[in-house]
Order: sequence, then structure tokens, then C-alpha cells
Amino acid sequence: MTDNTDGPLDRQALRVLDAYWRAANYLSVGQIYLLDNPLLTEPLCREHIKPRLLGHWGTTPGLNFLYAHLNRVIRARDLNTMYVVGPGHGGPAMLANTWLEGSYTAANPAVQRDEQGMRELFRQFSFPGGVPSHVAPEVPGSIHEGGELGYSLAHAFGAAFDNPDLVVACVVGDGEAETGPLAASWHANKFLNPATDGAVLPVLHLNGYKIANPTILARIPQDELDALFRGYGYAPRYVTCDIDTDTEQVHQDMAAALDEALDEIRDIQQRARAGGDRDRPRWPLIVLRSPKGWTGPSEVDGVQVTGTWRAHQVPLSGVRDNSEHLALLEQWLRSYHPEELFTDNGAPIADLLATVPDGDRRMGANPHANGGLLLRPLELPDFRRYAAEVDKHGATTSEPTRVLGRWLRDVVRDNADTRNFRIFGPDETASNRLDAVYEETGKQWQAEVLPVDEHLAHDGRVVEVLSEHLCQGFLEGYLLTGRHGLFSCYEAFIHIIDSMFNQHAKWLKTSKALPWRRPVASLNYLLTSHVWRQDHNGFSHQDPGFIDHVMNKKAEVIRVYLPPDTNTLLSVADHCLKSRDYVNVVVAGKNQTPDWLPMDEAVLHATRGAGIWDWAGNEHDGEEPDVVLACAGDAPTLEVMAATAILREQLPDLKVRVVNVVDLMRLQPHTEHPHGMTDPEFDAMFTTDKPVIFAYHGYPWLIHRLTYRRTNHHNIHVRGYKEEGTTTTPFDMLVLNDLDRFQLVTDTLDRVPHLGSRTARVRQRMADLRARHHQWTREHGEDLPEVRDWVWPY
Amino acid sequence: MTDNTDGPLDRQALRVLDAYWRAANYLSVGQIYLLDNPLLTEPLCREHIKPRLLGHWGTTPGLNFLYAHLNRVIRARDLNTMYVVGPGHGGPAMLANTWLEGSYTAANPAVQRDEQGMRELFRQFSFPGGVPSHVAPEVPGSIHEGGELGYSLAHAFGAAFDNPDLVVACVVGDGEAETGPLAASWHANKFLNPATDGAVLPVLHLNGYKIANPTILARIPQDELDALFRGYGYAPRYVTCDIDTDTEQVHQDMAAALDEALDEIRDIQQRARAGGDRDRPRWPLIVLRSPKGWTGPSEVDGVQVTGTWRAHQVPLSGVRDNSEHLALLEQWLRSYHPEELFTDNGAPIADLLATVPDGDRRMGANPHANGGLLLRPLELPDFRRYAAEVDKHGATTSEPTRVLGRWLRDVVRDNADTRNFRIFGPDETASNRLDAVYEETGKQWQAEVLPVDEHLAHDGRVVEVLSEHLCQGFLEGYLLTGRHGLFSCYEAFIHIIDSMFNQHAKWLKTSKALPWRRPVASLNYLLTSHVWRQDHNGFSHQDPGFIDHVMNKKAEVIRVYLPPDTNTLLSVADHCLKSRDYVNVVVAGKNQTPDWLPMDEAVLHATRGAGIWDWAGNEHDGEEPDVVLACAGDAPTLEVMAATAILREQLPDLKVRVVNVVDLMRLQPHTEHPHGMTDPEFDAMFTTDKPVIFAYHGYPWLIHRLTYRRTNHHNIHVRGYKEEGTTTTPFDMLVLNDLDRFQLVTDTLDRVPHLGSRTARVRQRMADLRARHHQWTREHGEDLPEVRDWVWPY
Repeated sequence: MTDNTDGPLDRQALRVLDAYWRAANYLSVGQIYLLDNPLLTEPLCREHIKPRLLGHWGTTPGLNFLYAHLNRVIRARDLNTMYVVGPGHGGPAMLANTWLEGSYTAANPAVQRDEQGMRELFRQFSFPGGVPSHVAPEVPGSIHEGGELGYSLAHAFGAAFDNPDLVVACVVGDGEAETGPLAASWHANKFLNPATDGAVLPVLHLNGYKIANPTILARIPQDELDALFRGYGYAPRYVTCDIDTDTEQVHQDMAAALDEALDEIRDIQQRARAGGDRDRPRWPLIVLRSPKGWTGPSEVDGVQVTGTWRAHQVPLSGVRDNSEHLALLEQWLRSYHPEELFTDNGAPIADLLATVPDGDRRMGANPHANGGLLLRPLELPDFRRYAAEVDKHGATTSEPTRVLGRWLRDVVRDNADTRNFRIFGPDETASNRLDAVYEETGKQWQAEVLPVDEHLAHDGRVVEVLSEHLCQGFLEGYLLTGRHGLFSCYEAFIHIIDSMFNQHAKWLKTSKALPWRRPVASLNYLLTSHVWRQDHNGFSHQDPGFIDHVMNKKAEVIRVYLPPDTNTLLSVADHCLKSRDYVNVVVAGKNQTPDWLPMDEAVLHATRGAGIWDWAGNEHDGEEPDVVLACAGDAPTLEVMAATAILREQLPDLKVRVVNVVDLMRLQPHTEHPHGMTDPEFDAMFTTDKPVIFAYHGYPWLIHRLTYRRTNHHNIHVRGYKEEGTTTTPFDMLVLNDLDRFQLVTDTLDRVPHLGSRTARVRQRMADLRARHHQWTREHGEDLPEVRDWVWPY
Repeated sequence: MTDNTDGPLDRQALRVLDAYWRAANYLSVGQIYLLDNPLLTEPLCREHIKPRLLGHWGTTPGLNFLYAHLNRVIRARDLNTMYVVGPGHGGPAMLANTWLEGSYTAANPAVQRDEQGMRELFRQFSFPGGVPSHVAPEVPGSIHEGGELGYSLAHAFGAAFDNPDLVVACVVGDGEAETGPLAASWHANKFLNPATDGAVLPVLHLNGYKIANPTILARIPQDELDALFRGYGYAPRYVTCDIDTDTEQVHQDMAAALDEALDEIRDIQQRARAGGDRDRPRWPLIVLRSPKGWTGPSEVDGVQVTGTWRAHQVPLSGVRDNSEHLALLEQWLRSYHPEELFTDNGAPIADLLATVPDGDRRMGANPHANGGLLLRPLELPDFRRYAAEVDKHGATTSEPTRVLGRWLRDVVRDNADTRNFRIFGPDETASNRLDAVYEETGKQWQAEVLPVDEHLAHDGRVVEVLSEHLCQGFLEGYLLTGRHGLFSCYEAFIHIIDSMFNQHAKWLKTSKALPWRRPVASLNYLLTSHVWRQDHNGFSHQDPGFIDHVMNKKAEVIRVYLPPDTNTLLSVADHCLKSRDYVNVVVAGKNQTPDWLPMDEAVLHATRGAGIWDWAGNEHDGEEPDVVLACAGDAPTLEVMAATAILREQLPDLKVRVVNVVDLMRLQPHTEHPHGMTDPEFDAMFTTDKPVIFAYHGYPWLIHRLTYRRTNHHNIHVRGYKEEGTTTTPFDMLVLNDLDRFQLVTDTLDRVPHLGSRTARVRQRMADLRARHHQWTREHGEDLPEVRDWVWPY
């Protein structure tokens, strides 16, 4: 060590900070390589090495470096800090640091802070029966897995919303920074209110390389890089380290950069909180430029490794069979001087422990990163008070999402003090007719406001940004830190976040198996402006496949609801906001829809999830019907009801049963999904041998996938969206996909045996009506009046 | 008009440019509102108005303005220019301009350039049986629908690659600019070679609002905006227009900006082409700030409309029932002075026509935008020459994608002159073991290069950027302009572009129905580093659901292949690169895999798509087997073969049939998919009554979805990925999901009747082996040697 470095750290502080970093690096390398001999108490030999060398070294030393420096400022300033790791494949770093600080052992008592525990820490990493190689739910302190790159910064901002005392440090990898979601996330600073939200401190980690390529941001000139971040609205500062840079100077530089950044954050917050300054601040941002695989072997087999993409995973790959590699590994491990860092029994020395924050201030123990610990149930106003009045089934209409908006408005109102509920949407909250919420709150917005603007607010419960990725990422971060929320989205475009949903569902599945992870609020999707009502748009806006997508994930975390009317939607929404650890997908319309059920029936129907609407059919008590007309979704329900009315009028002695399905999971066997009906239940509803005409909201084969094991499956005939569409009238969309009432009647005639000669007349009538519809719409540009104005007649 | 404007346009040029713009605006408003009276030859009345007012006015006048200005420079400079419209919901603009220039009528002779044609142009817009409201495939000159925002700039760059004479003007909306994919796309300039590629001229259109909100980029200070685009590496220039700005000055400013930008493009290209300048240029970029709904009604019902979000769709919504709205509409339409723009019979006046480029220079007629016109088949080297030598089924192993890489290397070589083939990937080409291509080409990269870098090139056939969105967007743009390509991706992360795939599949489906749109090369996905071999990663990297996702799209555009070995992969890949207008999904492994089939058998097998491997089973000629072991995918095939070997050894008189499925679509009924087997074919392969144990690569229910109509469906028992995983050994992954050989043998014993008492012994053996595996992996961290080293014994 030299004495001529310059910065805020005194000799002792510098010494222990560097020692901590070396310890974390040592523990990281150990995880990748060692089965045994964790303290290097004997010379390293083949038997100590794992047979499969797995892990990502390249990003790890930088993550350790930042962790060490954050610990210093947390202690110095008593900061409440989370650490979001964009390069989440650097799992060894987080495992090493949480072990060092004791939070890992608190969550996993089998891995103590001693030699045996260190051996287990090393062995379990990427080992069968052990822990994954990424910053998975198994890692305390994490809300972010990072295996799929791009979401760290959105998670960080989501965590910071409504947590005014929290500082979320977020490491963004330069690989990850090339992704779309991350590129969009820099602008999240336009949505963070310094008075009422916490702070996000992004650290762009330029280590220069991805798996096999340089990164864009590491290969543009410094003036472009600086302009870029100033353009994003940040005040960047730079900490730069080449392979040859004296690490002491880098420590000093990082310590200074962090001190300055945290001073700035404090000043920004004080100006906003005490001074009432409403200008959007230029939040600080740190760019750390350091060699990939920093402190690792600089050259292996004659080629440079540290500072190149070759350091990405396992720099020494042949350790078990190549004595030179083995010697290099031992030299590398010993370069950290483990004998100075750990006691004889393997515990970190007291100097290191003294650098660790106390209790919940440890980043691995921060309760925000185990959000269920902080979760407070929402105060939910009684949804029954918002009911559409229904004196007679289907006689009146209402707009389901508009009515829901009134309830959501009061959810906002009743939880204004706890500030733990937000609505996210890609510029569609009003389009989706939830705009009643603006009577109670605004859209959070820190950029410029003009007099003509409406509903913008420095502190609002609605967050709108035209990026489904940001909406999803913000909401995930918000939920995983113990709050509640809703994402309302056009149905077709929710596919934009298919992969983010995958990762969240995987996170929930794994978290549920960890006793120390506490349940969090469910992720609620309200998919509206759905496939059947894209009147202003067309084919590109028509895709009901998100339901299919979510159903590939574990049954214990997935719920799908298709409420047929306003009152059922209210009941479903109330249930979803009370639920925990699920992903709830609710598909509901925004257009005028018949109010099929009075509230008491709607609650019962939503609770049962599927049921026979005996008031709609004409079967007689105790007798089986001749045909079951089943429906799921608002548009199919309307068509089934209209088809039922035609059948009752045209073939009055045909016994029709109407079944409506709200909770799609009810269709699965109960052995496959906890909501699934037993076979006797299913058989009682759908019969064992009668034709079932099933009108479904989405792609028809999903119903087959759910029911293929049922007794009567071979009799189930499904109509749904078969990828036909354009900009046209609502009823024409149904006709294009053979989901219209006339087709459903014809389908019934095709499948019910022994109807006799009367069917010819009805068939002809259906064909005539379809032809009349065709001609009418093409002439008048709107739906046939008798279809448009149809009302349930019974 | 005043005389004191300043700029490159003389009076006459200014006059006709403005007249053209007015004509396009008039035609746009007409499409949204008018059923009749297209030339306003009589006073406007209720009957002339469409019953449903649909369309997006807000963005349209800006799109028209740019089109008019581009026409000027195309003529002046004889430019070869495409127009990519990010705000693709502004369909009326493209329809108006292509009608004005005659390219619309060329593609759609029913819509002539006369009064009757204008009436039809208006009527058909967003009308049942007419054309969609977006810039859909129906619009000549477009490769970009724009209904789902975010992909315009990536499409534009894809179009520009290898088209050195092309200038792709790309309008980016400020709403769209908030999306992740668009935010990432600005950096695409690091991949564009000024010597060998064309130019992209981005025009950021700041009209200030989305559906209901201001946009971020319109509400940050000018210095931030400017820094942002300089940070992205562009040289921005600004054309700014408030509601009050004299439009003549805006015309002058835009003309000057375009002239300067095009001069710069010319200079950049000359420096690179003649001068050999290899520095990354600062490409020009134009920011047009104009009021949303520019030239529309400034105030309606007492509130401001133009220049606000209220102009987004239909500014006057009550025209049919509100005489004030009707009067405002008439006033609005007449403000363009249609009588000065169109002849009595409705044709554009000669002055306007004189501003339109000639023939293929018209942006609606540019052949690049109908890429099939320019498509040249690839020269494909005979894939048989790259075969893995197979003397005996399954006796040797090879790495399928590594061998494929050698063939791809020579595809690159053999098409070097035509420059019409590229490989796109998110930093995974080498990781996916296709790195043989680097013997022939490099990775295109215009940012800084350091001595340590490998395979970077100013002109390379491989494009790597860590954004699946960019890979997909580039490839789409490349294919739709008549070239060929491949996207190689980790299987799990292809979900990132689920929604982009949706839009491309919809584009293909619609295009196939348009006779004037010529077939383009298929979009080929190579999904590797798949669910079963994520040895370095874990649960987040395990998701085989893209297959399920693509199968919701129209059967006529979707193909899915799961080649079980190297030779079959070669044959499939050859087929895919020759195919047209499909999306081909190929899932193949990169790890050592038994070479099951010699090349001649592989070709036959791939061509048939599914077949009985009679050399693997032990059924006797003419007799039906006792059980069918079916498989699709490389890992399941290995397990089925190992299970077959166990069964043949343990129960030699049990007649086992092995069926392998390469082309998943073969399983569907032929009435559902053109590749589907007929029922007799299917029954002959899978029997009508014997148990079928089906080992499948992905989520098991997909096999049920495909086969639920088959006679023997109730006997099909599927094993696949059931969402269990972590970082562990390859065989442990199979065990976690009950897809391992021991489980398949047990499944067989469970389902074949009358096997007698011998099964107890075999069952016990299977249970013992599973237990032994469990213990072994957890002790040794690797797979059981007898599993790892297993070789097909027959």
C-alpha cells in the first residue's frame, strides 16, 4: 500500500475496506471452484476442485467492490439501503457478501460463518441440491434475479416509490444496458418525486464486455457517454480503473463519488421536503469503469483474460486436469491473503465485521427486500356498494371497467395515508375507462407541466408511461417491497412483457418454497380494450394469447378470470387485491355490457368460478339438458345468451343449459390446479354425454387443453378467436371468427341429434341473418340494428 | 402567404409543397369522416358522415408534412427512399399520400384517382370490408404496421443494411420513443457501415402527447434533449412549429433541415466509400416539433384540441348529431381549399402531380418495401457434405449447432457477393457454437475497436447486440426488404420478442392474401442453449414456451422443428433457408448429442417430419407393438432411446416402437395444418389402442392440444418440462421433471397391461437407479457415470 492516494478514506478505513473486498472476492472464487479446503489450510489439489466449474466471475469483483463501499456509507450515514444487482448472474458476489455480513446465515442456519459453513457456502453453489448460480430468491436482500437482463433499474424505481427513506443502489451492467427495457428505464427519473419517494442511485458498471463482445457504452467516447446521461437527466460522475490503476486510488475515488452522490441525494430531498422545491432534480449517477474479472488471473494459456470477455464465466477452465491452471488458481486465491481475512475457524476477522452495518441495515437483511415482512393489507371499500343495479337479468347495461374505476378511486382514497397502492398503465388508464381514479389522485409526473395538462401531479397514485416494460418493472419492484398494485393494459400488448411475467412467476414459485420469504401481494393484470373491441385499431391489436402464455407457469401461482359483467368484475377485483403470491389475470371489457347478475348472484358466481345460469336456460329440474351452451368472457357470454334466446324461441322444446365460466382454472382437473373441479363436479355441470358448445374469449384450443381429461371432452366444441381480424364493427369481428350467435345456433343444430326437420328452417334463418349482417355492415358501416340493440328477452 | 420567409424554397416550390400537404391533409380528414360528397361539391350534411368515426388524426398532418418534403428531395436528388412510419396508427396519412402519388391505385385498381376513387378511398377506411386504420400490409410502400409501437427504427436499420443506395426515412413518434425497443434502437448507429449500408434518417416527431398524456421527450429542456441525441451519437437539427408559427417558415425550415441532413449523409458516405474513412460518423437526425393535430380545429366545445392529447383520434366526435360539430368539420375541410387541389373529376391538379417522384422513386412504389420483388434465392452449399459420419445409429456424438455453424459459414461465403444473408444474435453466436462463421466473416461493429477484440468487422455478416428486440427488428426489416437471415437465441429469452413475433406473423398472414405483395424469405429462429442444458445458469433460463406461443398464429405461416441430431438439423436448416413467408422455429441443442441418423436417413426423416425408428424398437414386421415410445427434441430422444434399451434388456418380449417427431405440426389433423397427418397416417404410427409414452421437449400439454382429436388420444401419456428447475446437472434436470429414462420405463410399466410379475423387479431397479442418481449428484456434483457415458447398445 502506498501513502500518496487522495480521498476521503483514512489509512485504517482504506485498509479494512480493501480487506473486506478481498474477503468477498476470495469467497466468490471459492464458490466457483472449491469443494473443500476452503481456507487453503493445505496446498490446493485436484480433489478440492468441483467437477463442473460453473459461475460468472467477470462481473463479480465489481459487485463486491460496490457492496463494500455501500457498507461504509450505510454505517457512516445510517442509510436504509437496498442493493439491486442488474448483472444477477454474479450470484457469487451476493452470496459472499451476505455470508460475510451474517444475513445469509440468518436465513440459512445450515451455513454458519465458520470453516464448515464456508465449505458449505462453496460446495452448494451451482451444485445439485444447492443454490442457483444467480441472485435468485434464495439470496437474502434481493428482489431481482437478473438472469434475464434489462429490468434492474425499473425494479429499483418501483422499490423506491413511496419509500422516502430508502436509497436503492442499482448496479446496471453494460451488457444489460443494451436491452430495450433498460434503455427506457433511465427516463424513470421523470416519475420519482423527491419529496415522497426514495432515491435510486444507479451505478453503471462499464466492465467493457458481454459474453463475447465489447459493449456499446464502453466503446463510445467519453463526451458521448456524458452527454447521454445528462440527456437522460442525471448528473453523472466517473470512477475509472484500468488493469494498472492503483486500487487504493480507486477506493478513494469511489468513496468520494459515493459521498458526493449521497450528499446530493440528501440535498435534493431536503430542497423538496423542507423547501418545497418542485423542480425535477438531476439525480446523481455513478459510472464505474473497471476491468472485467478485476483481480483475477491476468493471462491464461498465453492470452489476456482479465479485462476481456474471456473473464465472463470461469477464467481457468481446466483446473482439475491442468496443473498449471491449478497452480494459477491457488496463486489467485492466495493473492487475497485469506489468512489475513478469516480466523482459524473460518469466521471473518473482527476488522471485517466492524465494516458491516448493523441488523436490518445490512443490505441482505433489509426488510424492504423481503416485502412480505412490511406488507399491510389494503383497506378495501365494500365493492357491493358500487354494484350496477340489476332488477332483471341482462335488462340494463354498464361499462364494467368504468364502474371498477369508481371502486379503485375509493381504494386510492382509503389507502391515501399508508401510500401503498398504485395503478400502472401505458397511457391507457383513461382509455380503459378507469378515469374515475382521477377524482381522487393524479398521474405522477416530474417533467414539465403546461396549463393545458390534466391530472398530472407531483404525487399521484397513477403511473403512466408508454412502456409496458416499465409498468411491469415498476409494479414488480413495488410489490416485492411489500406494497399493492394493478397494471391495466390493452390485452394484445401485454405480450410485450411475456418474458418479464415468466421471471416474476418463477420468482414467486421459488419464493413460496422459502420459509423466510414472506408472502407478497399478487401481481394483478387488468386486460381490457380486448380482442373483440378494437374498434379504432385492428388486427395488430387483437391477441388474446396472454392467457395461454401464463398457463404454462406453475398452477399454484396462476389465476385467470373472465368476469362476464360489471358486478362479477367488482367481486373478482376485490378478491385479487386481497390475494397473495399469485399472478391474477383479469380480462374484462370497457364497453357497455349487459348486467347479467345482481350483486349477490355475482358474488356467488365469482366465488364458485363457474356455474349453471338456470335462469337463462330452459332445462327442467332434474332432467339433463339436450345441449350445454358454455361461455367464458364478456363477448362470448353475450353471444351465448343471444343464441340461447334464438334456440328457446325457435325450438322451444330443446332443453338448453347455459354455463358461464369466470375462473378458467375451474376447468382443469383438481389434481392439476387447486381451483380445478373434481370429475363429478365437472360432469354434473357439463354432462357426460351431451354436446357442449363452448364460446370462449381467446384461442379455442386452450379449452381443449384444460378439459382433455374430462369424460365428456369429445363432445366439447369450442369457438373462439382464430386469428381473423381487421378494423371493423364489433359484431363483424365475431362473425369473422365464427363466434357469433348465428353460428352458435348452427353449431348446436349440427350437434344435437334427433332435432328433425325443423332445423332446416332455423338453419336457413341463421344463414339469412349472417348474409343480412354482411350486407348491412358493408353498406352502413355499423352493426345490424337488431344485433346491436338486442336485449335478453326473458 | 407572406414574402418574408427565409429558406431554400422559392415561391412556386413553397406554394406547391404547401398545396400537396393541404391535399394530403384534406384526404386524411375525408377518410376519417366522409362517406360521400368527397369533393365538398355540396354543403356537408349528416348523410355524408360515417356512422362510426374511427381513426387517428393527431399524428397525421405531421406525417403528411414529412411525406411532402421527402417527395421534394427525392425528386431534387433522385433519391431511393423508403418511409417507415413509427406512428403507424396514422394510416390515413399513408393512404392519402400513396393515393396522391398513384401508387395506391397501382396496387388497388378499384380505387382510381378520380372522384369515385376518392369516395371509395374515404369510405373504405376503417370500414367493414375496407382497409384497416393502420399502416398495415395493405398500404403500399410500408414494411411497418406500427400498431404496436416501438419497432420502427429497428425496421429502418434492418432495411438499410446492405442497401448502400437506400435512404430510409423513419418517423419516430414521441409516444413510441418511450418504449424499450425504440429507446434501445437509437444505438443501432453503432452497427451501420456507411461504406456498404444505406442511410437511416430518423425524424423524431415531437407532437407532445400520447393518448392522454404529454410525452417525456417533449417535456424535457432543449439542452437535455440535445445532449441525449448527441449522446446517442447523432447530429440533431431542429424544426419547430407552434400553433402560431407561420407554416411557410416551417416549410422553409424543414426544407433546409432535409437538405442539410441529406448533404451530410452524402458526405458521410463519400468519405467512407471514396475516402476509406472508417470512423463512426455522427449521422444526422431531425427533430420536428409540431402541434398534435396540426391544422385541425383548434377548439371544440370550448376546450383546446389542436396541440393537445384531445387531437389524438377524432377531434370532432359528434358530427352526426351535433350541428355545431358538423359546421366545424365543414369549415375544417374547406380550410384546405379542396377546390384548388383537385380537378372537377377529383384528380389531383397537375401542380400537385408535378411534385410527385417518378415510378419506383415514389415511396409507395419503392420495390424495397415489397421485398419479394427483389428477393434472390440464396446459394446454398450441399448440406450433405457437412454430415456427421454415422456408421451405426447412435454410436458417435457431435454438437449439432457446431456442425451447423460450418454450413452457415459456407452459406456466408457463397453469398458474399450478393450480400443478402445475415445472422443476428444477442451476443450468443459463439455461445451457441456457431462460431465457425467467423472463419468467413466478422461481427459488424462501428464503435471503438481495441487490439484485444476478436472477430469485429466494419463489414460483417453477423450482427450481435444484447437486445433480442433489436435482433428481431433488424431481421424483420432485412427480410421484408427482400433478403435472408437467421436469428439464433437462447430458447428462454426468445419470449422477449413474443409480441414482435405476433406482429410479424400477422403481417405475413395479411400479406399472403394480397396478390401484389410478393413472398419474402421466412423468418428463421434457431433456439438453442435450451431448457435442458442451462448448466451455467438455472431456472430463469429454462422456458420452452415459445413453441406454444407461436402455435396460436395462423397455421399457414407457422412451422416448428425439433431435429433430434446433427444430420437432421442440417436438413431442416436447409429447408428453412429455402422456404418463403413462414416463421420457422428450430429448436436444437449445442451439446454433444448422439448421431442417431446417417445423412440419407436424416433427410428422409426430416422430410417426412415424423417416423418410426424401426432400428430402435423391437416390434416384428406386421405386428402391432405393445407400446409406443415417442419423442420430440434432442434430450427427450436420448431418454426414450435409453428407456427403450432398458426395456429391451429387461423385458425382451415386450414389443416397443420408437417414434421420433421432427416437425411438430405433423401431429395436428391435416384439416388444421397443411403439414398435419391424416387420421389413418397418425393411427398407423401411434396405433389406435396401445399406450403411447411421449417424451416432449417443452410443456407437455402442447402434445395434447395437438392430438386431442386423434383416435388414440386417451392413451397418450406425455412427459415434458413442468416448470421445475435450478442450476444443476443435465440429468438431474430431467429427473426433476420426470422426463428421465427411468421414469419413462416406469411409465411404460404402468400403462402396458398384462406384463405380470416381472415388472416389480424392473420397477424396483428404476427406483434404485433414481435414488442412486440422487445420491451421486449431490455427493459428486455431476451425473451418474452410467448415465453420462451411456451409448445406444444395439
